[in-house]
Amino acid sequence: MEHLAATLFEFLIIVVSAKLVGELFEHIHQPAVVGELLVGMLIGPHALGLIHTNDFFLILSEFAVIFLLFQVGLETRLLDMLKVGMKSFWVAVLGVVLPFMAGYAYLSALNHDYKTALFLGAAMVATSVGITARVLGDLSFLRNKTSRIILGAAVIDDILGMIILAMVAGLSQGEFTVPGLVMITVKAVSFVVLVVVLGSIATKRYGHLLSRLKTRNMPFIIAMMICLGLSALAQIIGLAAIIGAFLAGMVFAEVREDYQLDKKLEPMTDLMVPIFFVIMGAGVNTRLFINTDILVIALIVTLIAILTKLVGCGIAVFKDGWHTSLIVGIGMVPRGEVGLIIAAIGARMKIFPDDIYAIIVFMCMATTLFMPPFMKLAVDAKNHAAARQK
Amino acid sequence: MEHLAATLFEFLIIVVSAKLVGELFEHIHQPAVVGELLVGMLIGPHALGLIHTNDFFLILSEFAVIFLLFQVGLETRLLDMLKVGMKSFWVAVLGVVLPFMAGYAYLSALNHDYKTALFLGAAMVATSVGITARVLGDLSFLRNKTSRIILGAAVIDDILGMIILAMVAGLSQGEFTVPGLVMITVKAVSFVVLVVVLGSIATKRYGHLLSRLKTRNMPFIIAMMICLGLSALAQIIGLAAIIGAFLAGMVFAEVREDYQLDKKLEPMTDLMVPIFFVIMGAGVNTRLFINTDILVIALIVTLIAILTKLVGCGIAVFKDGWHTSLIVGIGMVPRGEVGLIIAAIGARMKIFPDDIYAIIVFMCMATTLFMPPFMKLAVDAKNHAAARQK
Repeated sequence: MEHLAATLFEFLIIVVSAKLVGELFEHIHQPAVVGELLVGMLIGPHALGLIHTNDFFLILSEFAVIFLLFQVGLETRLLDMLKVGMKSFWVAVLGVVLPFMAGYAYLSALNHDYKTALFLGAAMVATSVGITARVLGDLSFLRNKTSRIILGAAVIDDILGMIILAMVAGLSQGEFTVPGLVMITVKAVSFVVLVVVLGSIATKRYGHLLSRLKTRNMPFIIAMMICLGLSALAQIIGLAAIIGAFLAGMVFAEVREDYQLDKKLEPMTDLMVPIFFVIMGAGVNTRLFINTDILVIALIVTLIAILTKLVGCGIAVFKDGWHTSLIVGIGMVPRGEVGLIIAAIGARMKIFPDDIYAIIVFMCMATTLFMPPFMKLAVDAKNHAAARQK
Repeated sequence: MEHLAATLFEFLIIVVSAKLVGELFEHIHQPAVVGELLVGMLIGPHALGLIHTNDFFLILSEFAVIFLLFQVGLETRLLDMLKVGMKSFWVAVLGVVLPFMAGYAYLSALNHDYKTALFLGAAMVATSVGITARVLGDLSFLRNKTSRIILGAAVIDDILGMIILAMVAGLSQGEFTVPGLVMITVKAVSFVVLVVVLGSIATKRYGHLLSRLKTRNMPFIIAMMICLGLSALAQIIGLAAIIGAFLAGMVFAEVREDYQLDKKLEPMTDLMVPIFFVIMGAGVNTRLFINTDILVIALIVTLIAILTKLVGCGIAVFKDGWHTSLIVGIGMVPRGEVGLIIAAIGARMKIFPDDIYAIIVFMCMATTLFMPPFMKLAVDAKNHAAARQK
């Protein structure tokens, strides 16, 4: 019985502090996720020691991340993606390949083993579309064609990120051999394609049957069950659980509005997801940054993360002029939840030491903080130029 | 990592089977909760053994029950309660005192110790308002004045049930002495009154401030935090956690619609609460009923549960004619979540043996199944009589 009261109180401490700081960050126009990570660092075992991560919170934050990735998937319609066209595709591909290779090369040059280098590369891949979308919205720039290229590319690079995570996680469990690489790539790609194709057909053909069910919120509950089922399946065939969750979200994206799946999921994820980020922050040993070597590596990794997106994504749309290039490049810089989740998976698999974990979290926070002010400058410059042309 | 896949699968088995059978029960116009309990008995360790209740599911179902009682509290406006007047009050009081005393007396006569007898009495007290409301709605009888008496009384008897639970749980931890009884009663009543009065004032005066917050779903999250905080507080001062949750719900009932608190909570509870009932069912050793003695006691307890509500609640409205008496009496018969939760608390505190636990679950299921057909007969008879008078 006392166990329950203690768990309730720890739950309270985590959510209340996360939401207080998150609210503060919203008021100063900064992403709440950064505040949540900072809270975790502060109240975690490396600093104040107010929370200690027990099994319940670890499993709960796994569930939270699964629901979060389902939510991200819900925003990803296959049809919309096919529509955004080749521009978004190339922005995504170049913006994935460059950071991955540069991250891998840098850590390899520092004599880290290939697994650590692969995970760092993978964590540098995926743009956090939510943060960029919010900033573009605040700047009244969301309806511009440039914004659509960014949003489309961010979605495609989430999928590429998932495939890279699947490959990297698979490779880390075995030896790094060419047949092994081929095997994992085939497994990851075929899982993604199979689920998306079969799932989309099933949703289109049978999705309307859900409205015949009598139990309250049954379509939502069935979507959640398929999400958890695909997550477990992904885990069992050697991919990450979140890949299954993300694909389940994509499958239900078509009927999202019919059954208000996003509206029903939001309150739960808004309550649970901060737990994940606080616990992520709690795992960061901030004292490591007192060591100048580690701080310098963190700064260089962040610089690589920024430059590779600016260059990679910028080149893909260079024909549209350098204003557009700049906006697209800046918009793709922030790494958020997907990078953090990849760091968490690597840490749990004990692939890399504490300092690499801390560096990845640093990079995710820094790239996220970098974007808003520079985006404002770039959008203002483009608007100014457009006004002068008229 | 494999731990996660296993937890995900067990979660799936529980929710999928609960919802399948629940949906089936809805189609044959039976309460889903009975189906969920039956599923638990079937897949639990005493029968098929498909699930074994680990720590994660136990804590998760604690959270589920806390959210469920918050939801029940949300439907309980202090003002509405003061309005329903003395009729509902007397229906509730007589419908609480009679079953409690009769249940206590019967088990005492069977030579059970006073703690077991007290808990059985407490579990027989609270009417499950949700099930009755649904049946009255199906019969198009909800707008009738008789229905309002029932719903008001069911709400008041939930509160009385909470106070009795607080007293019983307190008494079971110590000796049964008169000063002890007075102490616990004072503690329980003052906690209830303090939270409801201070909470209602705070909500009325400061509730509108919630709309100034920027974070998405923040009013909902604050309500949840207060719910969890009061639950932990109730637990710490020696009451049950659900009492705090229920009172938190009552406090937020006033602003329920302003912030759509019920709509936001529903998807989460619809997903989580069946886990509680399945795990409740899984704890029932159905083989015990092969023993005729236990089956007979279960049937007698059920009979007492039915008759004491019929008589107690019926007497309170006897002036309104025997048709009304009968409908009110039948409407108050079903025991649901509150009785089950009291059984679960008693079982966890190891107050009583497996057979008493099984008997309480039996009684909750049987009283719930008893109500719908008899209510239809009684409402038809009343409508028939009313038609003849015209």
